[in-house]
Amino acid sequence: MTQQKINVTIWNEYRHEKKNPVVGEIYPQGMHAAIAEGLSVQGEIKFATLDDAEHGLSEEVLNNTDVLIWWGHLAHGEVQDEIVERVYNRVLHGMGLIVLHSGHFSKIFRKLMGTSCDLKWREADEKERIWVVNPAHPIAAGIGEYIELPAEEMYGEHFDIPQPDDLVMVSWFEGGEVFRSGCCYNRGAGKVFYFRPGHETYPTYYNPQVRKVIDNAVKWAAPVGSEYPKYGHAKTPLEPIKGAK
Amino acid sequence: MTQQKINVTIWNEYRHEKKNPVVGEIYPQGMHAAIAEGLSVQGEIKFATLDDAEHGLSEEVLNNTDVLIWWGHLAHGEVQDEIVERVYNRVLHGMGLIVLHSGHFSKIFRKLMGTSCDLKWREADEKERIWVVNPAHPIAAGIGEYIELPAEEMYGEHFDIPQPDDLVMVSWFEGGEVFRSGCCYNRGAGKVFYFRPGHETYPTYYNPQVRKVIDNAVKWAAPVGSEYPKYGHAKTPLEPIKGAK
Amino acid sequence: MTQQKINVTIWNEYRHEKKNPVVGEIYPQGMHAAIAEGLSVQGEIKFATLDDAEHGLSEEVLNNTDVLIWWGHLAHGEVQDEIVERVYNRVLHGMGLIVLHSGHFSKIFRKLMGTSCDLKWREADEKERIWVVNPAHPIAAGIGEYIELPAEEMYGEHFDIPQPDDLVMVSWFEGGEVFRSGCCYNRGAGKVFYFRPGHETYPTYYNPQVRKVIDNAVKWAAPVGSEYPKYGHAKTPLEPIKGAK
Amino acid sequence: MTQQKINVTIWNEYRHEKKNPVVGEIYPQGMHAAIAEGLSVQGEIKFATLDDAEHGLSEEVLNNTDVLIWWGHLAHGEVQDEIVERVYNRVLHGMGLIVLHSGHFSKIFRKLMGTSCDLKWREADEKERIWVVNPAHPIAAGIGEYIELPAEEMYGEHFDIPQPDDLVMVSWFEGGEVFRSGCCYNRGAGKVFYFRPGHETYPTYYNPQVRKVIDNAVKWAAPVGSEYPKYGHAKTPLEPIKGAK
Repeated sequence: MTQQKINVTIWNEYRHEKKNPVVGEIYPQGMHAAIAEGLSVQGEIKFATLDDAEHGLSEEVLNNTDVLIWWGHLAHGEVQDEIVERVYNRVLHGMGLIVLHSGHFSKIFRKLMGTSCDLKWREADEKERIWVVNPAHPIAAGIGEYIELPAEEMYGEHFDIPQPDDLVMVSWFEGGEVFRSGCCYNRGAGKVFYFRPGHETYPTYYNPQVRKVIDNAVKWAAPVGSEYPKYGHAKTPLEPIKGAK
Repeated sequence: MTQQKINVTIWNEYRHEKKNPVVGEIYPQGMHAAIAEGLSVQGEIKFATLDDAEHGLSEEVLNNTDVLIWWGHLAHGEVQDEIVERVYNRVLHGMGLIVLHSGHFSKIFRKLMGTSCDLKWREADEKERIWVVNPAHPIAAGIGEYIELPAEEMYGEHFDIPQPDDLVMVSWFEGGEVFRSGCCYNRGAGKVFYFRPGHETYPTYYNPQVRKVIDNAVKWAAPVGSEYPKYGHAKTPLEPIKGAK
Repeated sequence: MTQQKINVTIWNEYRHEKKNPVVGEIYPQGMHAAIAEGLSVQGEIKFATLDDAEHGLSEEVLNNTDVLIWWGHLAHGEVQDEIVERVYNRVLHGMGLIVLHSGHFSKIFRKLMGTSCDLKWREADEKERIWVVNPAHPIAAGIGEYIELPAEEMYGEHFDIPQPDDLVMVSWFEGGEVFRSGCCYNRGAGKVFYFRPGHETYPTYYNPQVRKVIDNAVKWAAPVGSEYPKYGHAKTPLEPIKGAK
Repeated sequence: MTQQKINVTIWNEYRHEKKNPVVGEIYPQGMHAAIAEGLSVQGEIKFATLDDAEHGLSEEVLNNTDVLIWWGHLAHGEVQDEIVERVYNRVLHGMGLIVLHSGHFSKIFRKLMGTSCDLKWREADEKERIWVVNPAHPIAAGIGEYIELPAEEMYGEHFDIPQPDDLVMVSWFEGGEVFRSGCCYNRGAGKVFYFRPGHETYPTYYNPQVRKVIDNAVKWAAPVGSEYPKYGHAKTPLEPIKGAK
């Protein structure tokens, strides 16, 4: 497949890497840098982090972003509501959004889902095997039957999300749980993909299959370029109305 | 089918009926009274309105409500955020919610959908024909092929909602539009049904088929009585983990 | 919840029980008898087996059946096409169908799904844990968070089914696989539920939670009593057509 | 968007054009030729018709087809079951399938859907307006809010199909009906799109928006190139099983 030009912005909370030497050693340039390395899309790749002005998500940046990738964990509460609203509006107007791992609890994901997005979790260095349950979906392209991660944080059901428009992957965990790990949604003119793996203390974003999923997801989530629908008062009917006064 | 005991609270903004004589004549006791007349469920039926203390939706009322019906239009902005949050939490914990007509723009519906819930509209006394597209669904029981309303407000696509878990009805409008009119969603442990018709200047809630849909929807949306899932730290794995420290 | 009157027919291939002493000991009256014991619905419960005339599924039996439960394995090929067609037509006209375990490969399930319904399998006495992923669904009522079966046959993804209209349960297997174990579909005016567990060499159909799921599924799948839609030539338009000759 | 190389085969019954002078005049080279003109995809475009040997759908042709477009009407019964089975297997293995208009009653579509695919119809030169209900979907790209066709055959609900994985378009008809006109499904590793318009007596396949939808659908339905899943006996577990004999 030839490559489309897609402008990607990778938003990273970027706190763990600076605070926790374990994380800093795995991701010396930040998780965003590792995620960026895995992208094959043509187009600009930009970074934005929590501590940037406007969290790096100015109107201009967002208007020039086709797909936004989101990783956050410690500091969801520090993301300003005004910026959340801005991202939300861009998604409804067509921008793709890829939410990774602990981003399940971000303000933007919860706002777009309309549910608590709560789940079970455990940090126990356990094995995860992410099974493809929809091989026809473009996000599953080239992944094979499953991705095996030797150690990850566990996320378990019930995951309090709306039923996905397309469920692409389901995780098996060594400790006995399952999880809907690859979930697609349409919201307005935009697309949203949630992808489970990526706890900060593991080198998950160097895994070639994990990178392939994110790269596929970016292509899938890129705006299709439809004109935004007209809403509001449609005063003039398209057809004559008999009873009209 | 035998009847379940379901406690229903009907929330009505209850302003049009008092301000606009046309509406007051059609619904002298308020739209909530007309909606209540159509319910066949056993159980208590309570009313709650915008101008009641806590909008009539105290913790106690909500905790004793199995299904909440919502009609609002003029004054969505006057509904306090705290009460919206309360209703939202009850839905996620299992309470059913039936959102009627202009309730599409209520805070609670927008919050549960995660989208703008915008649409096209027109007041032109035009004919609406609501077609059943899912005859297997319990909300369509006993409706027949369609409901014909001689005059209604038009709501037209694009309706900015997430794709319904089940789409039960689609409207045809005389003026040339279509609309997804009966939309089912699961949110947490609760169920949400959006039903389009019911502009305040028409006697729509006296229509026997419209009443049947609302009555069916109440039964469908009643809590199934599942234990609420446990979320959070699942420290002890269900199975032994080899690599665990 | 009060009980509806629902007539249930349980179809069992009924060969393993007679051929294999292990199975015969677990299910001395046949698996159908054990399944019947678990049903709380009011109404008639009938049995039908492969070796009955017309496989026990005469026009009369099917016309008086609200929900048909299906267990088959060894002899899918012996089920006559004419009877499959008869069951298929009854489903499209409103009869519920619950397909259990190895019934995934039955002619009737494959015909209703439109896919191969293939999967991975292994007989290794392994633990299965069936997680509820949709606590709002009536089929999950009263199950709690999961069902644990100490030993079952493994069924693994990819399971070649259409994406379920509602996915209610996902299985974890000790050997490393996951499986979409509780899958809801609408087909015509009828409903179909696939439920994974029930290998003949295990006492699975005595498990109270498994029985509860089947009982819930019967209630969910019972016909809603809608009039069957009219198909074909709709010669007379409902509205005037300008260009009509 | 840059173009992918996609090999398309357009299957046309090709009888109306030869029998009916009205149709022959509109589509002198056959409907397949008009459909082909609208495709922008790079790759080979082949034609296949009912009266060709093997209906033009040899193993070799199908194995080299990425997306198959299907138009049939008069002679669904003449399509050999063996060829239907061949097409079916190719879809489950990844080939895209676009079913047009009266193809709703083709053997292949009914087999993939698992339902009767019945509907209402009327030939009365009536206006159709096809509304986009999912502007985020790639099949809707560049269409705008709706497609207006001055005269078409009417197809009306209830359309007896499984609920689409994605519903992209809904038609309004002058005579009072609605119809789910653009319906997406995954089947196995393949994708299926049903698109309503295209009665043989109207020049519908010259309409630029109709052509755009078909072109978009071809791109959407092209195989994603996933490895076909392994099914059957998974004898060796991926993880150790305690109870295993």
